Amino acid sequence: MLGKVSLSGHLFDKFLINEALDMIEAAGGSFHLAKCKLGQSADAESYSELEVGADDKRVLDQIIDSLTRLANPDEDYISPPREANKISLKIGKVQQEKEVKEKPEMTKKSGVLIIGAGRVCRPAAEFLASVRTISSQQWYKTYFGAESEEQRDVRVIVASMYLKDAKKTIEGIPDVETVQLDVSDSENLLKYVSEVDVVLSLLPASCHAVVAKTCIELKKHLVTASYVDDETSMLHEKAKTSGITILGEMGLDPGIDHMMAMKMINEAHIRKGKVKSFTSYCGGLPSPAAANNPLAYKFSWSPAGAIRAGRNPAKYKSNGDVVNVDGENLYDSATSFRVPNLPAFALECLPNRNSLVYGEFYGIESEATTIFRGTLRYEGFSMIMATLSKLGFFDNEANQVLSTGKKITFGALLSNFLKKDADNDSEPLAGEEEISKRIIKLGHTKETATKAAKTIVFLGFNEEREIPSLCKSVFDATCYLMEEKLAYSGDEQDMVLLHHEVEVEFPESKRVEKHSATLLEFGDNKNGQTTTAMAKTVGIPAAIGALLLIEDKIKTRGVLRPLEPEVYLPALDILQAYGIKLIEKTE
Amino acid sequence: MLGKVSLSGHLFDKFLINEALDMIEAAGGSFHLAKCKLGQSADAESYSELEVGADDKRVLDQIIDSLTRLANPDEDYISPPREANKISLKIGKVQQEKEVKEKPEMTKKSGVLIIGAGRVCRPAAEFLASVRTISSQQWYKTYFGAESEEQRDVRVIVASMYLKDAKKTIEGIPDVETVQLDVSDSENLLKYVSEVDVVLSLLPASCHAVVAKTCIELKKHLVTASYVDDETSMLHEKAKTSGITILGEMGLDPGIDHMMAMKMINEAHIRKGKVKSFTSYCGGLPSPAAANNPLAYKFSWSPAGAIRAGRNPAKYKSNGDVVNVDGENLYDSATSFRVPNLPAFALECLPNRNSLVYGEFYGIESEATTIFRGTLRYEGFSMIMATLSKLGFFDNEANQVLSTGKKITFGALLSNFLKKDADNDSEPLAGEEEISKRIIKLGHTKETATKAAKTIVFLGFNEEREIPSLCKSVFDATCYLMEEKLAYSGDEQDMVLLHHEVEVEFPESKRVEKHSATLLEFGDNKNGQTTTAMAKTVGIPAAIGALLLIEDKIKTRGVLRPLEPEVYLPALDILQAYGIKLIEKTE
Repeated sequence: MLGKVSLSGHLFDKFLINEALDMIEAAGGSFHLAKCKLGQSADAESYSELEVGADDKRVLDQIIDSLTRLANPDEDYISPPREANKISLKIGKVQQEKEVKEKPEMTKKSGVLIIGAGRVCRPAAEFLASVRTISSQQWYKTYFGAESEEQRDVRVIVASMYLKDAKKTIEGIPDVETVQLDVSDSENLLKYVSEVDVVLSLLPASCHAVVAKTCIELKKHLVTASYVDDETSMLHEKAKTSGITILGEMGLDPGIDHMMAMKMINEAHIRKGKVKSFTSYCGGLPSPAAANNPLAYKFSWSPAGAIRAGRNPAKYKSNGDVVNVDGENLYDSATSFRVPNLPAFALECLPNRNSLVYGEFYGIESEATTIFRGTLRYEGFSMIMATLSKLGFFDNEANQVLSTGKKITFGALLSNFLKKDADNDSEPLAGEEEISKRIIKLGHTKETATKAAKTIVFLGFNEEREIPSLCKSVFDATCYLMEEKLAYSGDEQDMVLLHHEVEVEFPESKRVEKHSATLLEFGDNKNGQTTTAMAKTVGIPAAIGALLLIEDKIKTRGVLRPLEPEVYLPALDILQAYGIKLIEKTE
Repeated sequence: MLGKVSLSGHLFDKFLINEALDMIEAAGGSFHLAKCKLGQSADAESYSELEVGADDKRVLDQIIDSLTRLANPDEDYISPPREANKISLKIGKVQQEKEVKEKPEMTKKSGVLIIGAGRVCRPAAEFLASVRTISSQQWYKTYFGAESEEQRDVRVIVASMYLKDAKKTIEGIPDVETVQLDVSDSENLLKYVSEVDVVLSLLPASCHAVVAKTCIELKKHLVTASYVDDETSMLHEKAKTSGITILGEMGLDPGIDHMMAMKMINEAHIRKGKVKSFTSYCGGLPSPAAANNPLAYKFSWSPAGAIRAGRNPAKYKSNGDVVNVDGENLYDSATSFRVPNLPAFALECLPNRNSLVYGEFYGIESEATTIFRGTLRYEGFSMIMATLSKLGFFDNEANQVLSTGKKITFGALLSNFLKKDADNDSEPLAGEEEISKRIIKLGHTKETATKAAKTIVFLGFNEEREIPSLCKSVFDATCYLMEEKLAYSGDEQDMVLLHHEVEVEFPESKRVEKHSATLLEFGDNKNGQTTTAMAKTVGIPAAIGALLLIEDKIKTRGVLRPLEPEVYLPALDILQAYGIKLIEKTE
């Protein structure tokens, strides 16, 4: 039962409000404050609207009476007569109250099976489990048209190879079920998929195929955060025939990047503009405070994949010219970058694979003269990685010493492989200065050598400590130390930064507009449970995809990316309403 | 009553620990986890020591029994017999327990009067109110030698001109008293000062004199976070005669900066080293995420003081040469700066007033060839501020139009005063591009003009909105808009970054060492209550000063700065133990 009270600011300062809230809580009621800042001084901050709830009409009446007395201390206040199911009162200003319904709530129940209990699972499960609560909110009603008091409730089942992992992942989230499921066990897979409306696969991409097959068979929608690969694309007709949607690329990158881009691009096209330039920058990074090492980088997973990605060739279009970057030159092609309205982040940018395909995805390949997608790192990262690469730290062939199983220390290995091009130099390489000098001898500049040496010492590559026998190459040894020394400690946060810039030309007026969209999100640490920014920005859009399918807001069947307004428009709005901040700007 | 349990990591994984903690809480006990990360995978994170507390011996025994069963699920565990006042048990490994005393705790009660209920007050009051809790911790006992179970308890009284302010400030901190006190009311001042052992004055510096006089009269110690000015210095003999300590400069800057510097310098001197270079950088800034405007800066107080500080002349020593910077050239002298192990912050540095006096304070004036103290801002700030200054935005003389009381809009004022040097230009200055062009005409570079124009538009200086009549100069109008547009919004954090670098030469070996000390702190937002990083880093050291005087750890009497080991050694350790992270590094 809900009563809404409007309070005039000068009567209800923060201090009085606190008294009021204590009183409501003591009486067993609940409240929602609509904050309204009045004036400029801190004291004048006040609340102009206060929604009060209580399970019991009597309690509610009592609370409102007391509130009224509190607000009008000098008046001899007499409770106004109230209509049976209506509350009307004067505190500052009168507001008419909605009809209070005594009948029990209606609930629509749907089910989602989340397969995979890695870190992305938790924010996804949390979102879906919260649908019951958020479905009474205005934005939810706006999107899903629940005019009635009917509430959406989602049954969430988290399936994992090991039940214990699933249980750990959802610890503290109420009403989420957990089941043991090996997706190669087709009987069990059929059983659990048949119990729900939508499947959300958070498994590695290679495992989606078997899940997709089952979904087609049982006519259940499927959502993933992975790239739509050829294997998935080939399921398009089957999925269509079966009347289901396989919605892929519903994470961050791919995912939110598509949505933010397509929103800007479609708006431009609707206004008859031509997108002349599309540039996009995305990075999963440590927060600035956690970037506390010479590389200004940390790994949440194994470094091997990330280091290999540093050798991917790249292709993009700049002012009409197609630029190709060889894998071995990728780090050298890094350029300084600042997000215009977030100038405090010292960033640099590396071209990210083939940007041209995005021209096709976004329907701007013929009009845009610049199409660029970049990966963000903090300044200095690429120069150091380039130097380490040139020095041989990422050499993946079996090392003469390591591969024989002979015991050797990191320091000895370093002296050994940094020596190879020098003329039988025999100085020890214990300290930063000696290492730096050696690197200069190998042909690098002083600045580069200093920074690389600092990194080598930070990693402990100069230490007289035995290299574990599982390391067979210098690359393995580097990965081993990077995983150890560049890990997040307990209270450190990661960060996700995604920034798009679009230049639109309007042919008639020749006017040029610059649009930008930015997402900046940090990891959380609540009650000792860390949710990374990466997990949130991948898991929440994926879960939103499942919700849109449950609510029948996505009509397209077959294999789909979030490039269509029916997906990205509500998805972006729900992301915002759920607390992921997206900043859009036009100049 | 406390029982300590040692647990072997493989038995107690995180999941089991959570069960255990739930169980302890359900039984009404409390716990303290000594975390110990074992192995490399996330699952292997475990706790090797668990301290369990309960008010009642029976409850404690019951908890320990249950814990033991949980830890040894396969053993047929039988409660071991226990001695009357002793708990001894085997879970993984046995640890002998301290004697549990049944007699009531002894409490030593002292009192601190905090005068001034501004933002710095809350973290100071919180620290002092927590002494009862922290005085049972090991670091506390180490410093204050409380071998017995005796607990220190501090009576905290917060005094403010308006009782309401004091009450607001300490909301939610248990057991803190509040009183109304106007320090010019000597009778009341005497009354409250006489009730305590130490006074902590957080009033504006100009108000300390009257408090100091009363403290001398009543023989009570005084702590402030303000500069020790001439007026305070002159109280030295009187304070000494009265047997009290007036401890000033116990904030951040001055305060923690002195402590961190003197610790490094004294250590160098003890080791017979000579400090060749001392450089120090300090900034109160928005966190990178909150630096979301072209200036990358926000104001927590009125901008007027900060803008005026941008015209302070500066003096420092660089490689033996004394460098003077005129006030009007201060912004132009900014240089790019990176904290070596925090490279993600895009910072720049402005020389901060007279650095040479710090050579005297720190006793390095004859040995150091470089002595530099700088103010930190994010990159780009100084260039924009220099340009705004040159364009006249900070002109403080009464403006022809504004001072007559004639109504005028910001946009009109902008056109008007940006026109004065241009040849009767009549284009309107509504958009960023027009403003930028005009600035270029006034002799600035394109890059400068673009950034300045972006800032002017961000501030709303081009808007057709009436300037409030309280603005009499262009400076007033600029301050008005900066206060409005560059304010922190509800959930935005500020940040304090303090970084010292010291180069020490050891004359015998000619070896040079580089030492650095860094403090990085962010504002908190708990339960809707914001505590800024600035308030924490000023309020907590001030409160620590009061605690050190209570515990009689500071023996020096008279007027004192935290330059002595008896102050800075325990103060820095307590800051760390209380959660303010200081990172020290040697190369």
